[in-house]
Order: sequence, then C-alpha cells, then structure tokens
Amino acid sequence: MAATSTRIGVAGLAVMGKNMALNIAEKGFPVSVYNRTASKVDDTVQRAKAEGNLPVYGFHDPKSFINSIQKPRVVLILVKAGAPVDDTINTLLPFMETGDCIIDGGNEWYETTERRQKAMAELGLLYLGMGVSGGEEGARNGPSLMPGGSIDAYKNIEDILLKVAAQVSDSGPCVTYVGEGGSGHFVKMVHNAVEYGDMQLITEASDVLKSAGKLSNQEIHEVFSEWNRGELRSYLIEITAHIFGVKDDKGKGYLVDKVLDKTSLKDNGRWFVQQAAELSVSAPTIAASLDARYLCGLKGERVEAAKVYQSAEFGEEVNKEKLINDVKQALYASKICNYAQGMNLIPAKSVEKGWSLKPREIARIWKAGCVVQGVFLERVRKAYDTNPDLVNLLVDPEFAKEMMQRQSALRRVVCVAINCGVSTPGMSASLAYFDSYRRERVATSLVQAQLDYFGAHTYERIDTEGSFHTDWIKIVKRMNE
Amino acid sequence: MAATSTRIGVAGLAVMGKNMALNIAEKGFPVSVYNRTASKVDDTVQRAKAEGNLPVYGFHDPKSFINSIQKPRVVLILVKAGAPVDDTINTLLPFMETGDCIIDGGNEWYETTERRQKAMAELGLLYLGMGVSGGEEGARNGPSLMPGGSIDAYKNIEDILLKVAAQVSDSGPCVTYVGEGGSGHFVKMVHNAVEYGDMQLITEASDVLKSAGKLSNQEIHEVFSEWNRGELRSYLIEITAHIFGVKDDKGKGYLVDKVLDKTSLKDNGRWFVQQAAELSVSAPTIAASLDARYLCGLKGERVEAAKVYQSAEFGEEVNKEKLINDVKQALYASKICNYAQGMNLIPAKSVEKGWSLKPREIARIWKAGCVVQGVFLERVRKAYDTNPDLVNLLVDPEFAKEMMQRQSALRRVVCVAINCGVSTPGMSASLAYFDSYRRERVATSLVQAQLDYFGAHTYERIDTEGSFHTDWIKIVKRMNE
Repeated sequence: MAATSTRIGVAGLAVMGKNMALNIAEKGFPVSVYNRTASKVDDTVQRAKAEGNLPVYGFHDPKSFINSIQKPRVVLILVKAGAPVDDTINTLLPFMETGDCIIDGGNEWYETTERRQKAMAELGLLYLGMGVSGGEEGARNGPSLMPGGSIDAYKNIEDILLKVAAQVSDSGPCVTYVGEGGSGHFVKMVHNAVEYGDMQLITEASDVLKSAGKLSNQEIHEVFSEWNRGELRSYLIEITAHIFGVKDDKGKGYLVDKVLDKTSLKDNGRWFVQQAAELSVSAPTIAASLDARYLCGLKGERVEAAKVYQSAEFGEEVNKEKLINDVKQALYASKICNYAQGMNLIPAKSVEKGWSLKPREIARIWKAGCVVQGVFLERVRKAYDTNPDLVNLLVDPEFAKEMMQRQSALRRVVCVAINCGVSTPGMSASLAYFDSYRRERVATSLVQAQLDYFGAHTYERIDTEGSFHTDWIKIVKRMNE
Repeated sequence: MAATSTRIGVAGLAVMGKNMALNIAEKGFPVSVYNRTASKVDDTVQRAKAEGNLPVYGFHDPKSFINSIQKPRVVLILVKAGAPVDDTINTLLPFMETGDCIIDGGNEWYETTERRQKAMAELGLLYLGMGVSGGEEGARNGPSLMPGGSIDAYKNIEDILLKVAAQVSDSGPCVTYVGEGGSGHFVKMVHNAVEYGDMQLITEASDVLKSAGKLSNQEIHEVFSEWNRGELRSYLIEITAHIFGVKDDKGKGYLVDKVLDKTSLKDNGRWFVQQAAELSVSAPTIAASLDARYLCGLKGERVEAAKVYQSAEFGEEVNKEKLINDVKQALYASKICNYAQGMNLIPAKSVEKGWSLKPREIARIWKAGCVVQGVFLERVRKAYDTNPDLVNLLVDPEFAKEMMQRQSALRRVVCVAINCGVSTPGMSASLAYFDSYRRERVATSLVQAQLDYFGAHTYERIDTEGSFHTDWIKIVKRMNE
C-alpha cells in the first residue's frame, strides 16, 4: 500500500495497461493499479518490483483503488473499446468525486467518447479520450499520445504525459493537447488508417519484388534493411526487414511463407473509410488497404477463383536491380499519397466540429512512439510548418519535387505488376489519386452531362456563369431526323 | 372531382410524382394527386387532360385528398428524402385510418425507412419503402420498382405496380416484392452505386479514347454508337453516344467540352461505401467512382496542382483501332467487377438482416426502366439463375470465360492510361480487385506477421491448425548476436 496518495490510477492491466503503469512509475509518478482479475494486479506489482522497485501500488477493489489516488483523481482506463469501457467506468464511478478525471486510452469511436464526456460532465467529472499508439513496446518505453477533451483535465496531467510519451530530441515529447471533444480518438483513428495504408504499400512492394522480380526472402530482407537506412527509414520498414529474415522454427524455409494469408481487422480502418465518405475526402490508398484485408479473408473463395482462372498466364522480363530501385521510389511516392489522404481528413473534420486541429502538431507527435513513426513524419510536419493551411501534401513544394522525381518509377512498377498479374491496389490507387488531383480538367464533365440528360440535374459551363439544362433527347431526335 | 373513389393517391408532384401519377392513370387506375403548392396539382391535372383525359383527380387540401381514395387507402409519396418525407406524412396522417398504407418512393436511407415503418405500424398503418429508378422518363413510361416492407401493403397494390413498371417481354414487369423492412430502399441504394460505377467506367473509357487515343468527339460518338449495338448495349452507353454527338448551342465545338468538370453527389453512393465497409465487402470500383466525384469537386485545388506538376510529360504511341477494341473489352471486364461488387453487398446485408433477398430477381427488375438497364443485366440474372448462391460474379462460368478473354485488354488499357498520365481509377481498381480475388495466396501474410510483431495479434499457419505468436524481436536479436 502507498503510504501517501499516488498521482494517477491505471485500470485495466492487459499488456497495454500494465506497460503504461510501469512507464508512468518509471518516470517517477507513483501509480495505483486495478483490474477486475486480481492476479493481473499482483502480476503488475511484482513486475514493478522486479524492474527496480518502481512505485506501483496494487488494489483488488475499486474503492480502495480510487481512494489511494490524490485529488483531483485521474484514472487512465486501458481496456477494449465499447462495453468494457462502460463497465469499467460504472465500477469506478461510485467512488469518484466532482473534479476527478477519467481518461480512456483505448481505440474508441470518437462519438462514443463524446457521449461519455457529456455523461461524465453531468456528474461533475472531467473526461479525456486519448489515443495511445506504439503497441506494448511503445506503452512501456514511450508511446505517441493523442489526448482530446477537457483542457483542464489535460493540464492536470500534462507533466506526466510529457515524460511518459516518446521523446524526440529535435521536437520534444510525442504528445500534445489535440483538441476538444472526441478529437483525440478521432486523430488516433486517422493514425491507424495511415498505418493500414503504410502496411499495405509495404506488402505490395515486397510482393512485386517477390512475384515479379523473383527475389528470395533473404534478398527482400536485405533490400528492406537497405531501405531502412534512407528516406524510407521507419518502424514498419524495419520490422518488415526483420520479418523477411526470420526462418521458420517449425520446418524448412522462412516463417513469413508459413503465415496464413488472412488478416485481422479492427474498427479504426472502417471508421476512417466511412468518415472519408461522410466528408467527401478521397482516400483510395487507405480504402485499398481495407479492401485487401476483406479479400484476403475470403481464403476459400480465392482458392476456388484461382482454379477458375488457373490458365491465365502472365509475366514479363524484369531487370532485378532496376526493379528494386523503381519499387523503392514507387513505395515512397505512394506513401506521400497515403499521408495526403489521411491528413486531409483532419482539417475536414476540424471544420465540421470546430476543433481547431493542428496537422503540424499531429505529424510531430507521430514522429516517434507510434507504429507509423519514421523520418517521413518530420517531412510532413515541415510541410504544415511551412504552410499551416496546406490543402494537400502533393502541392507542398518539397513533396511535389519528390513526386516529380518518382512518378515515372511508380508508373513502371504498377505496369510491371499489372503485366505479371500481381495486384497492387494501394499503389494503383495512389497513382490514380495523383493523376486525378494534378489534372486541371478531368473527364467527369461527362458524368454531369449524363446526370443532366436523364435527371435534369443541370450543369455549369466553363465559359459562362450560371446553371444550365439541355434537353439532350430533343436535340438528338432533331439530329436524327 | 372523382365521382367514385380513386384507387391510389400520389403526394408530391415534382417531376417524378407527376410522371408517376400520369403513368398510373394511363394504365387505367384512377389517381388522386396532392401537393402543398396548389399550382402543381392543377398543372398535373391539366397535363392528364391534355394526354387524353387520363383519370387524375386533383386536391388542394390533404383531407379531401385522402378521403377521395378507396379504402384501405394507398398513398405514394414522392418528395425529397429526409425531412420532407416526415412533413408529408405528418400532413396526411390525421386523415388516414387503420389499414391504410403509405409508400415512400424516394431515395431514403433504409434505416430511416425502418424507423418510419415502425412508427406507422404503431398507428396501425402499413408502410412500403420503394426504390424508383429511371428518372422522369422512367417514371412516365415504366420505371424499375423496388418495393420493400409490408407484404400485405405490397399485395394491395401489386396489380398497379405490375402494370406501371417497365415491361420486359422475356422476363416480365420490372418489379418484385424485394423483402421486409427497408430492403427496397437498400436495394435502390445498391442500384445507384452500381450506376455510379458504370458512369465512372464509361467516363474513363471515353477519357482514354480522347486523351491517349486522340479521338475526336465525333469519333467517340461513333465508337459508343457502335458499342451500343453489342454486348455493352445499355441506356448509359446510348446516352453517352448521344452526348458526344451534341454540338454546343452557345458557341463552337461540342457541348460536353463546355460542361464544367464538377459533378453533383447524392447520398446513395456514400451510403453504399459506408455499408460496404460495415459489412467487409470490397467494392473499390464503386468507391473509385465516388472518389472521382470528390476530387472533381476540388476544381480550384486541381488548377493549382496542375501548375505545380505542369512540367511532367507523358504519352506513348498508340494504335487507334487497337486501342478502341481494347477499351471496349476493358470497359466490359471492369463492368463485370463493378456488378460483382455491387451485387455482393446484397447477400451480405440479407444475412445480417434476415431479408432473404434474391439477387436473381433484383437483376431481373433492373433489366429495364432504370438507369443501369442493359443487356448485361440479363447476364447477371442468368448467373444467379444458374447458381442462386453464387459468391461472386467472377466465378460464374460465363463471366469467367469473358474475363479470361478480356483481361489482357484491360491490362493494356490501364497501362496505356498510366503511361499517358491519365487516371483510370475505376478500371485500375477493377483490375486490382480481379487480380486479388483470383489469387490463391495473397501477400497479406506479411501484414499479419507485422501485426503479430508489434501487437502480438497472433497468426494462423498454412500447414498446422491453431493460433501462433512469435517473439520476432527476440529472434532478430539472437540473429544479430
């Protein structure tokens, strides 16, 4: 038991909660911990002891847990999103007092967070929805933190968050007050969507190298290790390099080839796609990463389809060295499109909700600690630093220069993949996005003409102000006479 | 005034309501009509007189309107979705009685329809949500009708609907009882999404012909006219041919070139994309058609982006005749993918809601009357007739054969477009969808390995049952020692 009160409580001691508690304690803040299953409490306390008597204090009942925290109390909840959060809140609520604060560190839907914020406010409690990224490793050693909600609640624990978050030497701790309402969880949703995009693009890059370039796992391992020393340097490139180097411990060959091609799916990606549709934000690279997960889940259907189409033949001669270099550039160029799409949801939502979100700050706090961390984020931060109202990363002068240098490689890679029968939905979508966005006049004037033809939707003209409708059928009838 | 009671009432006399009333009356069913604005009532009645004394009876107040209809009364509402529907219902409700029926013929969100169904049921009223497609032309001369909700309500007016709907000689009227709840409006949403996809693919086809093939509008007019005589024969191909033949009446050249490239957007497309995400159905061709509309709306941004990227040069030599033939095949192949995606949402939703939807019947009632009508729908109907549990149109033997014959052309067209800097997001997405779906083993095993690496998500293996987790970091550390 703590002789004096602790500074903060952590409720929910699965791997994320446990590691966050250890992280906070290690930074010098005494922590109370609680979990419905008592053994998890004991386990966390023991672990804290083993790691050098970190000030972690365990409680087996919610009342003494809450009473052990200094007032106004702050409790960080780290449980699965949805009903478990409500359950945990309801368990703790009877013992909390006006001015106390609850922080939900899970992957919650931002509207649910806002509903809870409102309910807690009616009880006189403060509430933060805080995105926490970085997996178990990040939670323990410095995650990226995206807190949103009550600014007072944030101020109460800012000193803790600044120390607990991942530290970047040139730009500070990976935490900022994101904004009001559910903005913290919204931004975490965007983070995860961009992460989906990155993972998909990396997968396609490795697939093209393997399927079209005939590179071995070992060679792919070396290529990604090399890429991780340059502009692509990032956590995901690093672990991809690692993965392609790991041999199967249960048989011959490499482990990655033994992993079933079925991918799990969380709600964050779906929500992003749905929000993008809601806000008319084009995000095809991210949508493609979701589609890939849906389709890979249809393993049985794919096996059948492969039989139906087995006689299709593909393949073209490729120069290995040139392909590797092209894929590197294609990956980087697609990555720019991925982030352009992801970041664009932020101002769109910010305007809708009046959140005053700062893309620059959001890019900064993703520089370390989280899954998308990498040198690229500094580039994104810089782009918004140069122009806080940047409408699209593609028109930032620096990124534009890089796109110009790499777009030909991206075209070559997508065409090689197409001719080899390998799908690169993320790269294809990125290229189509780029080619649509950089085009002054697109062909959709035809769509508007069609809508006017059958639905009298009217159209605007390029040369005159106003709204016009043409009786196309009448004209065509006259022409045919 | 009607001497005896009329058979049905139509409330809301904008172009759709007016034309539906005329259509119903022309088929021999006396119709009462009502609109808040009295002049629209008079206009409709006058039009009915002019068209040969059709039995249309106008009313300026809701009470006499409702009283003029035979019991149990049926009122078809044709107003804008959302609040106007509620307003109209509330206007009519005081005069309706137990057993009467309301039909909403607009483009309503299916959940809203279900909410209203429930509210009406509590008042003892029946309710149908009915998709009506075909624009003003279809409404007047035979639309495709997609009624869902109370089967009793459907039975009450089946005789009217069977006559009013578009007639197809070999498969009957384009109407069927879709299913319970909001299924009628849900299916209409799918129809509109497929329509979005078709329009986008046609636009891309014309764009490639014009931008890469350097065809003139007149040549594109001729090409589409020619295509409309074969397997692509459809309403949208027909009107596209017409559009490319229409000269500008306000200046030189062709009208389509003067139409501003900004496209209007309705909610049906968004809802489809959001539902696809909800149900894990991959629908990238349809999503690409939405994205194209979002991006074309950013006219100002595109103009700026075009300046940034103006020095990019593209183009490759193309053989005009070969390109035209390739684009035709690419359009057809992409269309298969578009319908595969759209149709797949139907069983997914049907299972979730217990609706027992019949894809075969839905394809049948889209054969005429509606915007997507064309010979292709008979092919879709046949595929589901052959196998009612078909999991994807791509594995129907007939479609598979056609895909095999056309996939090379699709690859060539997408690559030509890419090399010319023209975006074909819908065709690219269709090809990627095809190449992902027909692949026994996809590369996303890497994604699962990554998830296991940083989040301990576990993975399955291809050679052993069970769920596995690897401590990748430990292995990599050991390897590096």
